[in-house]
Formats: sequence, C-alpha cells, structure tokens
Amino acid sequence: MRHFLTTEDWSRTELQALIDRARVLKDSPHGEALKGKSIALMFFNPSLRTRTSFDLGARQLGGHAIVLDARGQTWPVEIGDGTVMDGEPEEHAREAARVLSRYVDLIAIRCFPKFQDWASEREDPLITAYARHATVPVINMETIVHPCQELALMMALQQRLGDVRGKEFLLTWVPHPKPLNTAVANSALLIASKFGMNVRLLIPDEAYRLDERYMGAAQRFCAEAGTSLTVTTDPQAAYAGAHAVYAKSWGALPFYGRWADEAPVRAKGAGFMIDEAKMALTDGGVVSHCLPMRRNVKIADAVVDSPAFLGIEEAENRLHVQKALMERMIQER
Amino acid sequence: MRHFLTTEDWSRTELQALIDRARVLKDSPHGEALKGKSIALMFFNPSLRTRTSFDLGARQLGGHAIVLDARGQTWPVEIGDGTVMDGEPEEHAREAARVLSRYVDLIAIRCFPKFQDWASEREDPLITAYARHATVPVINMETIVHPCQELALMMALQQRLGDVRGKEFLLTWVPHPKPLNTAVANSALLIASKFGMNVRLLIPDEAYRLDERYMGAAQRFCAEAGTSLTVTTDPQAAYAGAHAVYAKSWGALPFYGRWADEAPVRAKGAGFMIDEAKMALTDGGVVSHCLPMRRNVKIADAVVDSPAFLGIEEAENRLHVQKALMERMIQER
Amino acid sequence: MRHFLTTEDWSRTELQALIDRARVLKDSPHGEALKGKSIALMFFNPSLRTRTSFDLGARQLGGHAIVLDARGQTWPVEIGDGTVMDGEPEEHAREAARVLSRYVDLIAIRCFPKFQDWASEREDPLITAYARHATVPVINMETIVHPCQELALMMALQQRLGDVRGKEFLLTWVPHPKPLNTAVANSALLIASKFGMNVRLLIPDEAYRLDERYMGAAQRFCAEAGTSLTVTTDPQAAYAGAHAVYAKSWGALPFYGRWADEAPVRAKGAGFMIDEAKMALTDGGVVSHCLPMRRNVKIADAVVDSPAFLGIEEAENRLHVQKALMERMIQER
Repeated sequence: MRHFLTTEDWSRTELQALIDRARVLKDSPHGEALKGKSIALMFFNPSLRTRTSFDLGARQLGGHAIVLDARGQTWPVEIGDGTVMDGEPEEHAREAARVLSRYVDLIAIRCFPKFQDWASEREDPLITAYARHATVPVINMETIVHPCQELALMMALQQRLGDVRGKEFLLTWVPHPKPLNTAVANSALLIASKFGMNVRLLIPDEAYRLDERYMGAAQRFCAEAGTSLTVTTDPQAAYAGAHAVYAKSWGALPFYGRWADEAPVRAKGAGFMIDEAKMALTDGGVVSHCLPMRRNVKIADAVVDSPAFLGIEEAENRLHVQKALMERMIQER
Repeated sequence: MRHFLTTEDWSRTELQALIDRARVLKDSPHGEALKGKSIALMFFNPSLRTRTSFDLGARQLGGHAIVLDARGQTWPVEIGDGTVMDGEPEEHAREAARVLSRYVDLIAIRCFPKFQDWASEREDPLITAYARHATVPVINMETIVHPCQELALMMALQQRLGDVRGKEFLLTWVPHPKPLNTAVANSALLIASKFGMNVRLLIPDEAYRLDERYMGAAQRFCAEAGTSLTVTTDPQAAYAGAHAVYAKSWGALPFYGRWADEAPVRAKGAGFMIDEAKMALTDGGVVSHCLPMRRNVKIADAVVDSPAFLGIEEAENRLHVQKALMERMIQER
Repeated sequence: MRHFLTTEDWSRTELQALIDRARVLKDSPHGEALKGKSIALMFFNPSLRTRTSFDLGARQLGGHAIVLDARGQTWPVEIGDGTVMDGEPEEHAREAARVLSRYVDLIAIRCFPKFQDWASEREDPLITAYARHATVPVINMETIVHPCQELALMMALQQRLGDVRGKEFLLTWVPHPKPLNTAVANSALLIASKFGMNVRLLIPDEAYRLDERYMGAAQRFCAEAGTSLTVTTDPQAAYAGAHAVYAKSWGALPFYGRWADEAPVRAKGAGFMIDEAKMALTDGGVVSHCLPMRRNVKIADAVVDSPAFLGIEEAENRLHVQKALMERMIQER
C-alpha cells in the first residue's frame, strides 16, 4: 500500500501522469471512480481551498468526504510508542488510524508543525504515525511539505509555459508579519527541480536556507536533470531572466521556536515584496503563490492583478490534481 | 449574473414566483435541478436552520453543499481595496471569492455586522466584496438583511392569510437582554411593504427607528401599493386590528457601538413582550418570529404554543424557498 | 413513534435483530433504505467514531447526514418548561426539535452530563427534552448511557464468543487522570445482563457503584436470565475465569461535582490497569474498551496489542449497528 506523504517517494513520471489525468478531469469533472468510497479529511489547521476541493472532488467522482476538525471536534491524539498516556491526549494515533481505516478508504491529514522544535518536527511525526498505523492510504494535505500544492503548481506552470524543462524557476522569500511554515517552500524546491527546471532560491540571509533534506533533494534532482540549483541574496540576479517566480514567506530555521531573535535577520528581507519593478527583470515571467496571500506585503496589487499571476489557476488545479490522486489511490488499493 | 443580496433588487413578481415554486417543492421535495452542482455555505456566525436547510435543500435537488465555518476553520479575510495586508487577515476576499467561484456554482454567506460602526456596516461590506469579486452568484444567508427569511415569512403569511394585500402587518420591537442585529427587522419592513400590506412599526422610542435605507424603501413600496407605513410607540394602537404580528428585538442605531448608553431608552420597551392580552387586540391575528427566539422574554409561552404562532412553518419554509432560489440561480447562470 | 434513547426500552429480541441485521450490512454495506432521507447529528461534545460512522452509514444507505456542532456553530439551548429565557440560551429545545423535525427524518444527539449535579443530570434532561418535542425519532449518541456502543460491543462479543449466555462478563473500573462520565459503564451493565451473561463489577471502592437505575436494571435482567450480578473490590476474584473484560473509568457518584474530595478514594484503584498478569487469570478472555482509550493507563500496550483485544472490531461495529438502527427507525415511521 502506498501513501502520498511527499513527492520525494513518487517519480516524475508518476507525478506527470497525475497532472495529465487532472487535465482530463478538468474538462470532464464527473465520474464514478470513487463510487461507494469515502475519504476522511482530518484538519488540525484552518483550510478553505483544501477542504472545499477535496470534499467537492470526492463528490464529483461519486465518493463521500467526511470532514473532521481535529482541533476541537475530535479527541487529542498521542503518537509516541509505549507512552503512559496520563497527559492531555485521550487517544493514540494507533487506534484512531486503525478505526478510521475500518470506516473509510482514504485518510487525508493537514497538520502544520508546532514551531517548537524543528529537530523533531522535521520528522513529520503525526502524519507518519497515521501512515504507519492506517491500513488505508494516507494523503498529505500539508504538514512540512504540501505535495498536493506541488501538483497544482506544476500543472499551472505547464498550462502557461508548456514544457518547463530548462526554464528558470525562482523561489523567493517574501515578507510576512509572522514566521511561517516552510512546507510550501520545501515543496516548491522539490517539484521545480524534479521537473527539470533551473532553480534559484532568493533569501534575505543564509539563515533562510531550507532544511538540508529538501536542499539536498533539489540538488540531486537538478544534478540528474543537468540543471542547476542556485542560492542568492541578490534580488537583481535572482529575477533576471526568470520564467516563473514563486513567492513564499517562512521562518528562519536557526531561530525556530525563538522567533524574537529572528527579527533583525528578517528585516533584511524588508524589500523582498514582489512588485512590477522586479517582475520587469524577468523574461516575461509568470508569478504565483499558494493561497492565502497577503496583498501588498508579499506581492503588490499591480502584480497580483496582472495577467502574469497564476495563483487562481493554481488554486483551481488543486481540485483537479486531488481528484486524479484519489482516483489513482483507490484504483491501486 | 445576478446575486441575491437583498430583496430590494428583486421585483415582487420575481419573489412571488420563488414562493410559488417553493410551494410545489414542499409537496414534491426531490429533484435534479442541482445535479452535479455545488454551493459553498460560509458561516461567520452560528446557524441551525440556515445550515440545515441549505445543506439538505441542495442535496434534495441532487447538488452538494460545502459548509465552511469561516470563524475558525478558514482564514481571516480582508475586504478593502489596496490595503497593505500586514494585520490579522491572511487572505483577501478577492482571492477567496475568485477561487471559490472556480470550485462551486453558488456561494452563500452569513456575516452579521460587528456592532462597531453602523456608518460603514450599513454598506454590508463583506458580502458586497464577495459579490463584486465572485464569478458565481452570491446568496445572502443574513447580514444586515435576511432575504431568505423574508421569503419564508411571506410564504407562511400567504399559507395562513391567503392574499396579504391590504392586510395589517405589525412589526413590533420586543425585549431581549442584548442589542441585536437589525437584519430581520429591516427585512420584515421590506417584504411586508413590497407585498402590499399596511405596515405598522411599533417601537419603544424613536431611537429604535430602522435605518433610513429600509424605512425609505418601505415607504416607497407602500406608496406604490396605496398602503401605509405607520410608526408608533403605542402598543394599543399598534395591535388593534392587526392581521399579522412579527416580533424582533434590535439595538437602537443612535447608540450603535456604545450600548451602555442605550439601556435607559431600552427600558421603555420592558412591557413590549407579546402576550395574550396584546394578541386579543388583533383581528384574530397570526404571530411569528424568526428563530432562535427567547420564550417569555420576546413572546409568552401561551402565544407561542397557540395556533396563532406560525414560526415553525416559517422556519420550515426556509427549506422550500431556498431550494426554489438555488434552482433559479443555477438555471439563470 | 419510538426513540432510541436507552436499551432499557428495547427488548433483547429487538436488539438481537439489530445486531443480526448489522452482520448482514457488514458484508453488504450499500443500500437504499435511507434514500431521500436525512439525519441531523447534533454534537455537544467531541467525536471521531460516532461522527464518522453515522455520516458514512447514512450515506451508504442512500441518505444524508447533517453534522451540527452544537457547541459553537448553533445556538445555546434552553430545556426547562415555562422558563423566562433571559439568560444565555437563545433558543428553546421545543423550537429546535420541532424545526429540525420539519427538515430531517431522524435526530441524533450527543450530550454528556455537565458534572455538576447528578440528581438532575441522571434524568438526561437535554435528550429527553428533544425526544419530547421532536416529531421524528431521536437517537442517543451518548448521554448518560451509550446504547449504540452497547450494540457494537455485543456484536463484537458474539463475533468472538458465539452465544454469550452464561458467560462471565467483567466490567472493571480502570484509572484515568480525570473523573469521567458513567455512560459506557452503565451501558455495559445493561447490555451484558440483558443478554444473559453473568456480570461482575470490579470497583476500587463502594463509592464507584453505578447509579441504582442501572444497578437495579442489571439485577432485574440477571434475575430474569437466571444469572448473577456481583460487585467486588478484589481484582483476583473478579478476573478469575472471566470470558470478557470490559474497561471503563468513571467518577464516583457520591463525589459528583466536588472531585477534589474524590482523589483519595480514587487512589485505591491505582493498580486497576488491565495488564497481562490480570488477563492471565481469565479463561482465555477477550478484552475491550470503547474508544478513545489511554494506553498504559487503562490498558497496558501488551494487552491492547494482543489478539484478545476487540476494541477495533467494536469500533467498526458502530458503523454496522447504527446502519441497522437507522434503517429500522426509518421503516417504522
């Protein structure tokens, strides 16, 4: 049985097949691939697009989604093995995962890190515990990576740019009042490099390098594809000739859990918002961001409201790629 | 594309057609008008009837409702144009509305005013922002008016009274421990006047006059129909010969956002609860209230539990009129 | 019209018929018994299994479940007759129940006691108010008893033990950091005695006797079946030769609402966790617990992870028995 926890476990060919199928489902949205099947959607964090697109996607394929708000409507969960459960958690993931597996055919989970201790949180402990104990496939709806967003992004890039191989992909850190999860940044690195793009990472300071797990994987994918992974703190160099710009804000990992200390380093990126001047340096580049997105903080209105922005298409694609994914995971069971 | 934000934009003929269709759907509840279609239900406030009736109604017509608790399960939303989004909101209504429009066929929103500044809140800023940016029709599930409740009320009145033209409709302010939204009161004024009833507004003090937008509209509708709109602070006069009594409590607009100052004025309405003595003054009148409703504060048990009370039918009608509405809005797209 | 508030009102033959039907539905899960029908699921407390299994079960039978989080997404409810509703509740159960009855075909409610005053809470006031005012059948999803869990447990016992008559059933109090609801303990007494088992109740102190309503009912059922109900504080005696061990923790009723005083009495049960040594005293007994369950507090890992544990099957059975129940209640209407 195979989970969809991270695209690292899936080949480019497999991922492209999902995107190709998503393109078909976009034109022909209704089907019966999930007839009589069900998926549990467990949310430990807020969601608008993910929830709507999974629920609707399951329905359009004849299936049924059950939305579980895991923050208050269900029981707090323990994941450690052998724990004496005399603390807050009333239930072990072992039981929750096994019971849900008796009811439903797929389990999807959103669980952001807690921003306390990256050394343990980089192991993605909750979703991996569910995957270990579930007897049905588990889908990642964003933890420390966001693989469904990767598929939606790549589908949108291919819709606009055609074959993306050898094209210049810029992942740029952008400002935000709070230190955020690195998930979408990690994911952007993974998918752009895996699909043969030259990848540039623009950060305000070396402290914003992403975890070595993802930097290393991107490096490997680029090496295999004969492309390059470049890290820079220079916006001019980063934007010059880019074909696609992807924006994301995140907290610097060396300051993880002690964010007050990060503030002065963060200040170096004060000018990193994407605006028309920066976009003018690109090779007529497109620009995107997963949503939600703070306007005029991460990307200026003039850019968001220009034809170069493909964030709405990317969000729409969530529906199509997730349907392709659910369909395949049900077929393979 | 047409929204259903307020009945002010819809003619009496159109509204009557919805009620007529609702009557048919009451007898024959299942259909396929929404087959393959979906509706997002966004709740910024609690709901029992609205949520249940929209969800069930969509399903009975072959469609699918997606319930979004917008207070905690989704992202806080900005509505201003050009805002530098460095505050609480993570997302702009522009993106939320556009993305939802890619997923679903209808968007319904409940968003009560915040009781801070009537001058801005009387513009109904959130739902109008969604309507401006959405590319699918938007339905009002109660903001500063409650147009679905209007249809349900008028359907119930017609079920009991037959042709309502020329009949006496009393909207009476009733006590409540808290200052409440004027939405249902505004709506009662609009629908009763539009459908040709003589409208009486009973308030404990001039401070409880409703916003001029609604007073003026009701005045206009009455003028067109050759009926009258009367405002009084005298319960005896107000109840005398009434055919329908509608109860609602609301906060006095001149004290909006500084409710402590309203208390002495509010005290003048201490005797305004609907009881048997008052009902005895009517012309065998029926009585209703949108739900929820505090018994023995707004209406005495003896009245609620009498055959004159049509609040349960009115609530049931929500299901029927909303199905008629969704059906029509889908057909018109 | 008949509700499913407690198995006390249902005969053993009727309950066995539900279990027999559940066994059929387990093998053949899809049907049309609820086609065009709907059920409202009202949760005043958290849920994972109950929510998932009712929602999915309704769907598998062609029906539609509407999940209402009654703690924040709907309005606070009054249940007293004649109350002047000037407190927190905005709505009376009388209206909520009557309106829901206009929309849906079944109403299911989860409402735990408030742990304040057992004398009133033992009357199960909220669900009985809904049952009194609803015009459709009401199903108990756990209040002060948990009758759906009873059916699931008995189905699991019969799956493992075959005919349970005359077999030894041990209900053992187990440790937990907090004083919990007696619902599942009450229910275990009721179902084991009604189905002809010899029932042993193991408690750390006489203070943990269950309410006389349930002790008396179990006594009566045992008398009718020619079996026995034994209460003991001696684990050795209790486990010796048992065929089924059922674990549950609960707060001692004499200390209800003043739990600090219960602590020293509770300490007497510190050694009551189910472990391998205790299980070795049984007659190859099976062991179970409704979920959620704290590992290594209530039951040791070695026991939970042994073949003797049937908690996962019991949880799965919730789906099957509830489908049988909904089907029957719809047929009888």
